[in-house]
Order: sequence, then C-alpha cells, then structure tokens
Amino acid sequence: MSFDLLISRIKELRNPTVAGLDPKFSYVPEYIRESFLAEFEDPLYGAAMAVLEYNKGLIDALCDVVPAIKPQAAYYELYGWAGMKALKETIDYAHEKGMYVITDGKRNDIGTTMEAYAAAHLGTVNIGGKEVAPFDGDALTVNGYLGSDGITPLLNICKERDKGIFVLVKTSNPSSGELQDKKIGAEAVYEVMGQMCEQWGAELPGKYGYSGVGAVVGATYPEQLLELRAKMPHTFFLVPGYGAQGGGARDVAGGFDKNGLGAIINSSRGIICAYQKEGCDERDYAAAARREAIRMRDDILQYVNL
Amino acid sequence: MSFDLLISRIKELRNPTVAGLDPKFSYVPEYIRESFLAEFEDPLYGAAMAVLEYNKGLIDALCDVVPAIKPQAAYYELYGWAGMKALKETIDYAHEKGMYVITDGKRNDIGTTMEAYAAAHLGTVNIGGKEVAPFDGDALTVNGYLGSDGITPLLNICKERDKGIFVLVKTSNPSSGELQDKKIGAEAVYEVMGQMCEQWGAELPGKYGYSGVGAVVGATYPEQLLELRAKMPHTFFLVPGYGAQGGGARDVAGGFDKNGLGAIINSSRGIICAYQKEGCDERDYAAAARREAIRMRDDILQYVNL
Repeated sequence: MSFDLLISRIKELRNPTVAGLDPKFSYVPEYIRESFLAEFEDPLYGAAMAVLEYNKGLIDALCDVVPAIKPQAAYYELYGWAGMKALKETIDYAHEKGMYVITDGKRNDIGTTMEAYAAAHLGTVNIGGKEVAPFDGDALTVNGYLGSDGITPLLNICKERDKGIFVLVKTSNPSSGELQDKKIGAEAVYEVMGQMCEQWGAELPGKYGYSGVGAVVGATYPEQLLELRAKMPHTFFLVPGYGAQGGGARDVAGGFDKNGLGAIINSSRGIICAYQKEGCDERDYAAAARREAIRMRDDILQYVNL
Repeated sequence: MSFDLLISRIKELRNPTVAGLDPKFSYVPEYIRESFLAEFEDPLYGAAMAVLEYNKGLIDALCDVVPAIKPQAAYYELYGWAGMKALKETIDYAHEKGMYVITDGKRNDIGTTMEAYAAAHLGTVNIGGKEVAPFDGDALTVNGYLGSDGITPLLNICKERDKGIFVLVKTSNPSSGELQDKKIGAEAVYEVMGQMCEQWGAELPGKYGYSGVGAVVGATYPEQLLELRAKMPHTFFLVPGYGAQGGGARDVAGGFDKNGLGAIINSSRGIICAYQKEGCDERDYAAAARREAIRMRDDILQYVNL
C-alpha cells in the first residue's frame, strides 16, 4: 500500500535510480532488429519481440545494480498489441530478476473506468472465476487533472495489493509551466496538485514515512523540487529529466530527505543508449548500460546521504 | 487535419452522437462470455475475443444510425495484450462499416514519447521500410496538463493523416472542479485549457469552421458547456455524461452552434447495456442498442437544429 518495497530495494542496492525502458526502435541494436524482423512476418510482432530481447539484455545487466525499471507505455503501444505483449513479458522478466516495476502510462479517467486501468496495470481481473493480472506493474504513473474521482479508484487496489501511484505534479518539459505554474490565489497549480497528493496519500502510510501516493517532479526544475520536498513530506518523488533532458546530480539533490530517501531518479536514453554514446560495439549494449547506470548512481550519491 | 470527416458523417446520418464501446465483462451477454471462455484456455484471451464479438454485434446494429464509436482504452487494457488486439480489431471492423473511431485513451506525455502515442493511435510506424498503423483510430482523447510539449507532437500527425484530438477541458465527474474550476486570475483552469485548444487548433482549420483540436466538455455542467461554446468557436466538443451520468438532452443543447454542429454527445452504458435496462433477451442486445441509439438521437434532435 506504500512504496516500502521500492524503498527497501533502493536501500539494499544503495541506489536511488530507475532505468527507463523506452525502447524506440532505433535504440535497439541492429543485429537484434534484423534477426527478429527476419523471423516474423508481421512487422509489429517482429519489432515487439526485438524490443523484448533488448529489454531482457538490459534487465540482466542492470538487475543487481538498479532497483527498478520504468517502461514507458507509449513505446509499447507503438507496436500495437504485440508491443503490449512485450510490455507484459518485460514486466514479468524484471520481476523474476527482483526488480520493481513502475509502468509509466500517465493514465487518467474516472470511476469505474479508472478502476479498469488500476486493475489492468496494478491489479487483477476476475474472469470466469479466475483472478488474472493483465500487466502486473508495481506502480503506475497517473495524471490528476480530473481530481479525486480519478485517483481514489486506484487507492483500494494500492491498499489490497501493496502497490503505488505517481501523480504528475511538476513535469520536466519546457512548456510544463503553461498550466502548472499558473497561480491559483497564492499557489501554483502544481502546488495544489501536490497538496492533493498529500491528502490522497494519507490513506496509504508507509514505514519509511512515505505514502503510496508519489509525485512526478522534474529534475529540470531544481527549485521546485526543493520547495516541494519541504511541502510534501510524505510524498515519494519520481524524478525524470536527469541526463538527456539536462538535469544533473546537483539538480536532483533537493528531492531527497536527510536520510537519502524520498526520491528515485530516472534515466532512460542515457542508460539504454549508452552503447551509442560510448561508441562501443552494439553487441556490448547491455554492459554499456550497466557502466552508465553505475556512473549515474555514483554521480547522484555524491549529493545524497543514503 | 480537422473533424471534417466526422462532421460530414454526422450530417449524413443527421445524428450528433457517438456510441462509447466500454465493454466491461459483465456487460457482455452471458452466452457470448461462456462460449468464448470455453473456447480459449487463456482467460484474458477468451475475454478479449468475447468483447470483440460483442462489439461487432453492436457495430453491425449501429453503423447506419450512429456516425462514430468511442472505444475506452481502459476496458481493452483490462484484458492485457489480448484486449489491445480486440481494440485494434474493433477499430478495423468499425472502419469497414464506415464508422468514425475516437480512441478514448486520455494519453499524455511529452516530445518523442507523445509522438510515439500519436503514431500508435493515429499514425503509422516505419519498421524495416514498411509503414504500419498500430491502432489506426481517427481521433484520440488527450490530457493537456503538460502543456504544448504534450500537444504539438500530435498536430503534425493530425495534419498529415487527417486526424483529430480531443483535449480534456471540463470533465463530467463530480470532483472535476477540484482543479478545473480553480481560478487563475479571473479565469478558471478549464478556461485556460480551452484557450490553449483554440490556439493549438489554429494550425488545423476545417471547412465547417472547426479545427482538428477538439475539447472534452461534460454534459453534467450545462452552464460551462454554453459558456465554452461561445468562447471556443473553432473547437468541436466531445460531450460525455449524457444518460447514465445524469445529463439530459436539454443539458447538452448548449454545446451546439446555430447550425446544429459543434458537438458530439457520447453514451456508453446507455447504449451498449440497453438490453439489460429493457430486460429483453440478451441475444437481442444489439437490436436493443439500436433502439436506444435511435431514442437518444431523437431526444437530442429536439434541441438541436441539425
């Protein structure tokens, strides 16, 4: 019902980072792409299975260093239903290897529809008397624009199945301020959203002081990160924007509390495309990802007392 | 690049409504559920194929009365990848029958990730030199909380492939006001979002005066509907909340312009579960859906000069 499982894993590996598995097809090494496209007649199926192979290699190389993966749903939907099969099998494989899985879907809707998303991504569905988990992530990113009707349907599943959600509060992109920074009285929209996270989270307390309702707060806005850490003491942060998007280790430091907890920093392209940046043999892509994950961990631990 | 195709179809059938295909498993008639669960060993696959069968019956019965369907992505993700296969095949089947398809996914992200959603749901992806359409909807609902970075990646695909988007502005749920009604200076958050829709839409003009950037505005807030119709003259509205959620024909009237255009009214449960409400034989579910669709059309046309 909280992020205790994620936090335990972060402490165990002494690494507050998550590897974003955003497998654009051009990121997948050519030898994998060619082999799978040759094997399957349906290009979407071939692409999806190539992505799965790529992900498995990354997970094998990262699982004893990085506590969690964050697959971005868009890059699986891009390959149609076959891509969603690759998503499910990626999640299962990560679980086999002991990793925590944050499904980055930014889902949002209301009432029974939101319950359906919750059941799909974090829960189970009962079909003819059998309980089946459609995707079985450990946490889901969600968008709170619709208010409590969009969030409370998730809370029951989080309670029952020890899952968590991350609500978009202050995102890492340049135009995030168009709405999120606008003032409602004395407070910005993102602050109002942050307060709602604290309220929703009160139902899902955790042993480390953090509830099961987390927040997405971008590394590209270090001042807001620091400010929100103070104002949202029970809300665990998922922080995108490190690396490729321009945020550095110093920028993310404000997201952590004095015990080095309170945040997990994502890197997607930086890790999964490390082989391209290094310029090493593409068959060495997984080892390159591991080297970058270790570099990133050590970079961040300079500023975090974990 | 606009909603011209949708509007033409609305005029042709003289019906400004859309059937929401939100197939909760309990909505599917028992004879279909039993037959498909018996046929397939994998419960998710059996459920997904039962949903597809149900949808095909509905589409057959509705296609010469109702211009569009709106499948809600959550109820397909609920059956895992097999559900997404049912979604794709539902979309293809609706297209064969001449219907317009609004994929209700409320997707949101930024930059290349949003491009991936756009390609997945409205566009194509190039794999090994082949252009393939993963889901191939005609329009997609999206959430604008992330600002322009989340919307502009969609506009190019809308231009190139004559597609549209509906941005959440004022949703139909009771708690929608928690954020959407809050005042930013003199304006509510939903008004700011509405203005952004008008701006984004300026790039996608249409021959009926409506751009390819529409807005979701709930029938449960008739005053805001009327107000937004005046303030957003180029923005086509997708209006949920009729019927099961409490909105009536008079409540939605404010969404239309003097030519009876400017809005499409959704009903999901009201139509697809009409057989349960009527209490007719469940094998008559599709005919019951058609009866309700005709009743709803006639109800709304009392107030709309189409």
